[in-house]
Amino acid sequence: MADIHHLWGYHPVHEALRAERRKVKTLHMVLEKIRPREEALMHLARQSCTEIKGTSPQQLNAMVGHKRHQGICADVSAYPLSSLDIIVEKAEASGALPFILALDQIVDPQNLGAIIRTAHCAGVHGVILPKNNSAPPSAAASKASAGALEHVHVAYVTNLANTLQRMKQREIWITGADQNSPQTVFQADLKGPLAIVIGGEEKGIRPLVKKQCDFLVSVPQTGPIGSLNASAAAAVVMYETFRQRGR
Amino acid sequence: MADIHHLWGYHPVHEALRAERRKVKTLHMVLEKIRPREEALMHLARQSCTEIKGTSPQQLNAMVGHKRHQGICADVSAYPLSSLDIIVEKAEASGALPFILALDQIVDPQNLGAIIRTAHCAGVHGVILPKNNSAPPSAAASKASAGALEHVHVAYVTNLANTLQRMKQREIWITGADQNSPQTVFQADLKGPLAIVIGGEEKGIRPLVKKQCDFLVSVPQTGPIGSLNASAAAAVVMYETFRQRGR
Repeated sequence: MADIHHLWGYHPVHEALRAERRKVKTLHMVLEKIRPREEALMHLARQSCTEIKGTSPQQLNAMVGHKRHQGICADVSAYPLSSLDIIVEKAEASGALPFILALDQIVDPQNLGAIIRTAHCAGVHGVILPKNNSAPPSAAASKASAGALEHVHVAYVTNLANTLQRMKQREIWITGADQNSPQTVFQADLKGPLAIVIGGEEKGIRPLVKKQCDFLVSVPQTGPIGSLNASAAAAVVMYETFRQRGR
Repeated sequence: MADIHHLWGYHPVHEALRAERRKVKTLHMVLEKIRPREEALMHLARQSCTEIKGTSPQQLNAMVGHKRHQGICADVSAYPLSSLDIIVEKAEASGALPFILALDQIVDPQNLGAIIRTAHCAGVHGVILPKNNSAPPSAAASKASAGALEHVHVAYVTNLANTLQRMKQREIWITGADQNSPQTVFQADLKGPLAIVIGGEEKGIRPLVKKQCDFLVSVPQTGPIGSLNASAAAAVVMYETFRQRGR
């Protein structure tokens, strides 16, 4: 059973079916309360030859280990990881300049999911995560992303600093979000091929990762509270990039 | 005891002491693990003539009803509500054009806190909340805002549509964030006196509130997932306003 993974909640399962990137083998659903959106989910599942099994809330609680499943759980194949090469090729195929997000040790799956949802909306081609000390692309992260994780290309790398170096060899500019940077995100030129590095919740970007950044940008702030959370800072930097590119 | 309120967690208590907007009567702390930041908190409390009482994690759990208190709880006076008049006067006194946020039925205290934290960083003069069906400015919201709620001016109003109308009489422009608007936030002119309306998590801005908006703006989005969450959309719209005002 080591290859059985669970996705739970409406959006993750719905988006996994739509994205068609991983096999959705069985859909376990509480069939008592079928509303139109559950109808639509079952229709999509039938089109994908997914087996549908009726179940009880109690069985689902036991299956996923908590109650946040909304009456929906699916047995799915492993999360389909990408690589830097796939992400860059995808960007090139789209005709747009590469727009990549690198998350340096975001440890909370809620934060990871929220940032990936925004990244998807902002048109990022892919997200790079370090294997060490980062929330993984889990079912909880997929739930927090409202299923966006099922569409986004995610590469899981051993050494983030090395991966940034490889990007630079491919002529991608690396910018790090750092609240101490005198240059604000609104002053910087973000129109070229770009990777944005966002640091973890507590410590920001690690020194060896920061060293690989071609330039740093801050999100300007007023008032006595120290800093925006990682998710809000990521939203502002990604959408300023979007704006400058004039899409 | 009806007038005793609890604030819990490091940041809310620290910011309540710094903001000096509500009386911090007693600070209950687990005195076993005093690190430098707890030292600083106790120093600040002594300066404010706050009584400091040692306690146990178990007592704090019982006091606040959960374990997310970080060993810190304070007895404080009620949250100091503002009014539209105070917010507008505050804006005028600062010499800046009014920059107000109106949240139409954000029901999750986590979302409310996250948005208020970003609003504070973006220099918003005040936040308007409807009394009906909105998360209140509670201890949970203060925690989620990293204490920013203790600094931000919040007005709690009976009828949000009427309040927006009153703002228009004061020559404040009202813009609503609506993903169906053909005009994007990047195309709109946000440089004048402005109130931004953000709708609730599920339903967006209510029709009677939307009717009061002078213009609507969307945050442009790519890909198949419907929409940004309220917190990310609010961050993008508030910081685009910040950028256009050239601060």
